Amino acid sequence: MNRIFTSLVMLGVPLTVAGSLLHWSSISMFIICSVTVIAISSFMGRATESIAIVSGPRIGGLLNATFGNAVELIISIFALKAGLIGVVLASLTGSVLGNLLLVGGLSFFLGGLKFKRQKFSIHDARHNSGLLVFAVIVAFVIPEIFSMSMNETKTLQLSVGISVIMIVLYLAGLFLKLVTHRGVYAHSEEGSVTEHEEPEWSKKKALTILVLATLAVAYVSESLVHTFEAVGEQFGWSELFIGVIIVAIVGNAAEHSSAILMAMKNKMDVAVEIAIGSTLQIAMFVAPLLVIISLFMPTAMPLVFTVPELVAMATAVLLTISVSSDGESNWFEGLTLLAAYLIMGIGFYLL
Amino acid sequence: MNRIFTSLVMLGVPLTVAGSLLHWSSISMFIICSVTVIAISSFMGRATESIAIVSGPRIGGLLNATFGNAVELIISIFALKAGLIGVVLASLTGSVLGNLLLVGGLSFFLGGLKFKRQKFSIHDARHNSGLLVFAVIVAFVIPEIFSMSMNETKTLQLSVGISVIMIVLYLAGLFLKLVTHRGVYAHSEEGSVTEHEEPEWSKKKALTILVLATLAVAYVSESLVHTFEAVGEQFGWSELFIGVIIVAIVGNAAEHSSAILMAMKNKMDVAVEIAIGSTLQIAMFVAPLLVIISLFMPTAMPLVFTVPELVAMATAVLLTISVSSDGESNWFEGLTLLAAYLIMGIGFYLL
Amino acid sequence: MNRIFTSLVMLGVPLTVAGSLLHWSSISMFIICSVTVIAISSFMGRATESIAIVSGPRIGGLLNATFGNAVELIISIFALKAGLIGVVLASLTGSVLGNLLLVGGLSFFLGGLKFKRQKFSIHDARHNSGLLVFAVIVAFVIPEIFSMSMNETKTLQLSVGISVIMIVLYLAGLFLKLVTHRGVYAHSEEGSVTEHEEPEWSKKKALTILVLATLAVAYVSESLVHTFEAVGEQFGWSELFIGVIIVAIVGNAAEHSSAILMAMKNKMDVAVEIAIGSTLQIAMFVAPLLVIISLFMPTAMPLVFTVPELVAMATAVLLTISVSSDGESNWFEGLTLLAAYLIMGIGFYLL
Repeated sequence: MNRIFTSLVMLGVPLTVAGSLLHWSSISMFIICSVTVIAISSFMGRATESIAIVSGPRIGGLLNATFGNAVELIISIFALKAGLIGVVLASLTGSVLGNLLLVGGLSFFLGGLKFKRQKFSIHDARHNSGLLVFAVIVAFVIPEIFSMSMNETKTLQLSVGISVIMIVLYLAGLFLKLVTHRGVYAHSEEGSVTEHEEPEWSKKKALTILVLATLAVAYVSESLVHTFEAVGEQFGWSELFIGVIIVAIVGNAAEHSSAILMAMKNKMDVAVEIAIGSTLQIAMFVAPLLVIISLFMPTAMPLVFTVPELVAMATAVLLTISVSSDGESNWFEGLTLLAAYLIMGIGFYLL
Repeated sequence: MNRIFTSLVMLGVPLTVAGSLLHWSSISMFIICSVTVIAISSFMGRATESIAIVSGPRIGGLLNATFGNAVELIISIFALKAGLIGVVLASLTGSVLGNLLLVGGLSFFLGGLKFKRQKFSIHDARHNSGLLVFAVIVAFVIPEIFSMSMNETKTLQLSVGISVIMIVLYLAGLFLKLVTHRGVYAHSEEGSVTEHEEPEWSKKKALTILVLATLAVAYVSESLVHTFEAVGEQFGWSELFIGVIIVAIVGNAAEHSSAILMAMKNKMDVAVEIAIGSTLQIAMFVAPLLVIISLFMPTAMPLVFTVPELVAMATAVLLTISVSSDGESNWFEGLTLLAAYLIMGIGFYLL
Repeated sequence: MNRIFTSLVMLGVPLTVAGSLLHWSSISMFIICSVTVIAISSFMGRATESIAIVSGPRIGGLLNATFGNAVELIISIFALKAGLIGVVLASLTGSVLGNLLLVGGLSFFLGGLKFKRQKFSIHDARHNSGLLVFAVIVAFVIPEIFSMSMNETKTLQLSVGISVIMIVLYLAGLFLKLVTHRGVYAHSEEGSVTEHEEPEWSKKKALTILVLATLAVAYVSESLVHTFEAVGEQFGWSELFIGVIIVAIVGNAAEHSSAILMAMKNKMDVAVEIAIGSTLQIAMFVAPLLVIISLFMPTAMPLVFTVPELVAMATAVLLTISVSSDGESNWFEGLTLLAAYLIMGIGFYLL
């Protein structure tokens, strides 16, 4: 399996370069790039696993989320430069929905098919729940509602204020997890579970591969993004659907493959940390950072989503919390998350 | 007590037949039918109890919910045929509110007056919470919001898509509960509680009575429904109030009497399974089934409730979850649910 | 420290009297009164602590909430008399937000800086969660949504109906806590924690001080309130911002100082009881009481908040519940609540 992925990467990257120079047709580029992204993502999954074995699920999950979201951040900055504010907000929405419902759902479902009951840290789940409610239900909803009776300047001031608060809180949360409360909530089981397992790669090698794979994914993703418009036209996809669903699926391929890999090895702590941790990073760090960056761009981006986007995110958060609050999962809970994703997908498709 | 109910049924059914043939006044028919329905429902309660003793709380609760909701399904199909889409959606709303707040509230309250703390399975409560959020907060809210900027055809497509997904997920949930995870979450206490208790009726007899009682309830309910308009006019009740409150109280009489009976015997697992299980069956099976059936009717019914209906259901779900999530109840939690029902009742009355 | 506060009270109260007679400038009165209120509040904190040691956290928290909210009730009645319905609703909103997010947040944050993990009763937290959802999500949201298609008379009827139900339920909740279920949920740890501690003041003395301090706070608060308009003009604060943020901070100074004092002594049960108990008293008792009182005033007040007020309260409740449901807190959870308060504060400032 690993060999196949290695060959696909060796083949896919040069083909992407060739295709973008020779202006191949959008459909063929779409297929080449998609396969390549997925193949490269498998390397990111293996690197994360190696790091998680050495450094624990939190650092592993954090690194995976960071490198995964780095790709999105880069693409979004290019989109901001082009003034495509609607696309940026749509792809942020898509990342939140994709990570919570699709990555989370597939992890619970596929992991649950192998293991009847899978457990993960209740303390982390609750820490994350509080932040999900803060980020999506408070920090995204307030500007939406309040801006309805505000002019543009005030809406932007509110957005910037909220963005600064969110970034500070996100960094404080990392500080809590990794410094002041490191190990405070460690469960006794954790020790017993980690039978001495050998990482596939050394920490240094794994990190190097993670960086290289991120760069490669970023490059190929960009080519992929350029095919969307033409592919969308041929398949009859609206811009919103492409932003929320297609961009999000491709842009989060790294999180997908890592989380599912972990779930199928019954390492649910890492899987959940990737799915929810990545969502939190998008909502509390990437989104506000883009608002602040947009101030130096031709068009400033307020933190105001469309109503369907906001409702989809808020209901996804409530569903995720009610499904994950008990620190346990099974295939059916995964199916529930996937069903919600499908419903929203149909909704955005028809919109 | 049981003898009184038997006499009431023996008297009430023939009177209903006579009354509908001889066109008695609406008020007298309203009283006769209401009493008869309640009397028949007591048989459904006793049958459920017998089955629950033999087959466990889940099967017992499921059978009760199914036979209880069968009545509603039949009446709703007749209403769809007559093109009364608003009435069907109102009575679905009423069933959700009635089961969660009225049946649940009365069970907690009356059970709680007898026992200080009543416990029920936390695992079932959480499984149900996830599905309640899925059904009402995701699957009912999304079409409401998204359809605001959609034409009728697309709204209907979205409704049908969501309906199919809900039915599949509902069946998968039953599969999980009754097949793959049967007994996985069984608590050690459960065994100790079930002191060897003798069922009143054999399984076969209980099932027969359940079927016969359902048919009788369906017949009498139909006569009852025809009195609503006249009674409503005399009492000054709006159509929405009749649909949401009156139809729901009568239509769920079976669930009421069974659940309360169980709660007062401290069998909270069955009582909760009836109240919440019946809600889930309405929201995830009966409602979507009616959407699909309506496609073959003169007027198709989209899954779009009025805003007050949706807000009432969504807040009822949030309240139920926050009250039941700890696997414990007392009379005050019952009173809280009843107070919420009363508030909504006043709201729909004044609307 | 206590001596400083004693001197400040001895100095501040006469100065306030002098200032209001001699018509000193608003800014100087604003500063004098604010300092005096905070100094008096410290006495209320100490009195509460003495009572809590003798009577337990529930009675202590209840008394503190009652005396704290008595001030607000008195001021609101004066405002109702003047027909300032918008100001009353805004200050009710501010009390809910201030108690949940500011008092709760500061308690968690400052307590958490001293103690890594602080615990409080899960049963009380869940009892309170259910009531918060009932009060804010059901009883405040329903009239908001339903009144959109109602005339004024019906809106007022709905408001009065809901108000009566809320007051009855609130009293029933006290009855449960203090009579029928007193000690039912007492945790075994509680006994061990209460090392024999000597109260600073006797119960009688503490109660006397509580009453006197409340009267003094009420007097000084009134003078303070009269400075708001002028101060607001000078600082460019809108009426809504003054009502929701400034009035609430000053009006809840007693709760602030008591709760934080308790949190820093690791008595989180009392701190949480003050923060959430006070919110519940405002939402379920003070607000409905004001609706009923307003019937005898020139202008009746319906229970209909503005949309930003309602959304702020509802999201604050969801955040509080998700942060406090595990019966544990740390400095980061406090910071999350404070961040939410700050976001809403910016929002109301810009509105």
